[in-house]
Amino acid sequence: MQDRRAPEPHDVVELIGVKRHAGELSTAEIGWVVDAFTRGVVAPEQMSALLMAIVIQGMERREIRDLTAAMIASGERLSFSGLGRPAIDKHSTGGVGDKITLPLVPLLASLGVAVPQLSGRGLGHTGGTLDKLESIPGWRAALSTEEMTSVLRDTGGVICAAGPGLAPADRAMYALRDVTGTVAAVPLIASSIMSKKIAEGADGLVLDVKFGSGAFLPALDDARELATTMVQLGADSGLRTVALLTDMDAPLGRAVGNANEVRESTEVLQGGGPQDVVELTLALAREMLDLAGKPEVDPAPALRDGRAWDAWRRIIRAQGGDPDAPLPVARETEIVRAAADGVVQRVDARAVGVGAWRLGAGRARPGDPVDHAAGVEVLVRPGDPVRAGDPLFELRCDDAGRMSRGLESLGTAVELGPETPQPRPLVAGRITG
Amino acid sequence: MQDRRAPEPHDVVELIGVKRHAGELSTAEIGWVVDAFTRGVVAPEQMSALLMAIVIQGMERREIRDLTAAMIASGERLSFSGLGRPAIDKHSTGGVGDKITLPLVPLLASLGVAVPQLSGRGLGHTGGTLDKLESIPGWRAALSTEEMTSVLRDTGGVICAAGPGLAPADRAMYALRDVTGTVAAVPLIASSIMSKKIAEGADGLVLDVKFGSGAFLPALDDARELATTMVQLGADSGLRTVALLTDMDAPLGRAVGNANEVRESTEVLQGGGPQDVVELTLALAREMLDLAGKPEVDPAPALRDGRAWDAWRRIIRAQGGDPDAPLPVARETEIVRAAADGVVQRVDARAVGVGAWRLGAGRARPGDPVDHAAGVEVLVRPGDPVRAGDPLFELRCDDAGRMSRGLESLGTAVELGPETPQPRPLVAGRITG
Repeated sequence: MQDRRAPEPHDVVELIGVKRHAGELSTAEIGWVVDAFTRGVVAPEQMSALLMAIVIQGMERREIRDLTAAMIASGERLSFSGLGRPAIDKHSTGGVGDKITLPLVPLLASLGVAVPQLSGRGLGHTGGTLDKLESIPGWRAALSTEEMTSVLRDTGGVICAAGPGLAPADRAMYALRDVTGTVAAVPLIASSIMSKKIAEGADGLVLDVKFGSGAFLPALDDARELATTMVQLGADSGLRTVALLTDMDAPLGRAVGNANEVRESTEVLQGGGPQDVVELTLALAREMLDLAGKPEVDPAPALRDGRAWDAWRRIIRAQGGDPDAPLPVARETEIVRAAADGVVQRVDARAVGVGAWRLGAGRARPGDPVDHAAGVEVLVRPGDPVRAGDPLFELRCDDAGRMSRGLESLGTAVELGPETPQPRPLVAGRITG
Repeated sequence: MQDRRAPEPHDVVELIGVKRHAGELSTAEIGWVVDAFTRGVVAPEQMSALLMAIVIQGMERREIRDLTAAMIASGERLSFSGLGRPAIDKHSTGGVGDKITLPLVPLLASLGVAVPQLSGRGLGHTGGTLDKLESIPGWRAALSTEEMTSVLRDTGGVICAAGPGLAPADRAMYALRDVTGTVAAVPLIASSIMSKKIAEGADGLVLDVKFGSGAFLPALDDARELATTMVQLGADSGLRTVALLTDMDAPLGRAVGNANEVRESTEVLQGGGPQDVVELTLALAREMLDLAGKPEVDPAPALRDGRAWDAWRRIIRAQGGDPDAPLPVARETEIVRAAADGVVQRVDARAVGVGAWRLGAGRARPGDPVDHAAGVEVLVRPGDPVRAGDPLFELRCDDAGRMSRGLESLGTAVELGPETPQPRPLVAGRITG
């Protein structure tokens, strides 16, 4: 549906045909189609056909770079120079129980690194950082660019919603991908994430790329390809980028949900918390310190001596939140118990994520509300021996009607066996430019 | 974009994901998605993503059958029983200069076979039967079902526009495919054609499946696959179907355009006309007579002895046309001449079709008007020896501004060489159930 009044330099049906037959699109063609889509000259049904062709036929590295550049060019660019300290960004591809941003930002802030976190909301079985923080009474996700910079300058950290000005073409394309089955493809995921991260203008970026059942791309090889592609996109545009490949086969930590995960994060910030959450927080912190030019700083003591905890309280307060207010507690709880004796072989992150979502912690559609008190407490880990009747999960929600739907997912989320399984390393790889 | 109020039995994003990964869709899933698309529950951008996945990943025969059945179920079904003579349908996949329907319908009508032709309009480089007939003063394409049956009963033939009630899901899907680069794929072409033909309810169907440069699917193997698929779909639903594979590498006959092709058709109906047009008309007529239970009838004499010509005049008159009125003649003509001596190796049907379209004979968008006088007279055939300066094409149009655009396509449409090329048979294959 081309606009007949304004002659366009390309024909979208021809472009779709090129990619349908696994051909390459030129830099000019990619730039045009992204721009024409945001102008409404290329219709959503045309863009979704092109996206499906890209998903199946793939893109060359040069095409992915061009797509990323076109999405950056659709909006504004930020800059965090002039803070007097390096600004290092972090992004996780999303997982179940992945609350790492919450302890990580104040930890880095307490060590002299500025961390601007423009975060998203959850959709489907993975939670969103903003949804979690909104369980803190008074806390606000929506900040103007001036407020964001001011919070970052004053506290060293800020976690807020990305404004509409950053890569708006990506926003429009993501909304389309979400309803057309074209989300999970390396060229599109990589360009979507990196267009926003490059436009943010930080001095460095650490990526936490997940694999395993709870990840968008469960296979390690796919996660490695995604990480490599993103690190290259960063390098190509002058953003120093490092990626860790981390295991998301089992949920991270014990808490899954919104208030649940805030509570667990505050334990970590006070020197406690589950071992895997602490380990990943410190691994990512070390990478960020390295990119910030502080490879000699050990982040571990700041979790134990109150520095990170103090930074958390400052950051939460700066965005209107009361760090001392009680968090929402669910009215209903239910325990899932082991049906037999055995050793826990797997705790299926995806099943736990879907269960928490069904309990009300997540949303099926953008804009839906979430239940801040709903979620799952994961009471066992792979390798734990259990006896029949031992508790495996505690389910929490405010709406008794949702409980049965949560139980449905969680009833089969733990796999028992006779032997102790091989332990899986949390960090399976590291990719640098 | 599922309707949240009415629970739907399937999730379209999941269905798209199945086909994206080259899986099979169930009968229930295909039936649902076609129906949900016509109800507006599945959005155009979702359907186009699914169509692109089908185009690239293909469909099993059972899936194509289910898709065809779902499109038939979206509308009404006709019946031509009670005419007192067999009703045999014909369909061509479309070509350049393919006016065969015009002589074929009256020829069969004169031999005791009823031929209901629910035809379409042209789009792009191939012409449409209705556009051609509309160059006859007074002739009407739009008939009610009652008018159509009455013309068919009175004259033995009718050529009219398909009403909106026949396979409306196909109509909506075709409009989407046309703008999303998802036209040329065997499962979608076959189900689109056969859903309408099966819903028409004739007693038999002869398909003219084109290959060569002027065809939708230029490769003979693709045309054979399409023909086989359509013959199977016919057999599966009790419609006896035969397909001929015919060469569309060079234009059919000499005339390309609207009034031009009517003029050439009337020559054939009076015992003259180009040899290839006569040959294909008779080949298709023999197949139709065979399906009508009249294999012993030789159709050739009826072209020479005035029976077919009389039937033509009756059919045209019954739809308001004046068979004696002069046809539109173009104001401007231009000759394309040979640049050198040689033997004609190829006359590129696609280039001729695009040339005629640019001269105004065709349309770029549904609903655009066509110039009935515009077109091309093809003055040479493969194997003809030519001298430099000999005429190759006569271009005709009413708008001098279009002439240069037509010349652009036709300037390189004839390929010359030193040797006489191997003659190509017009009918390359025959496929039956």
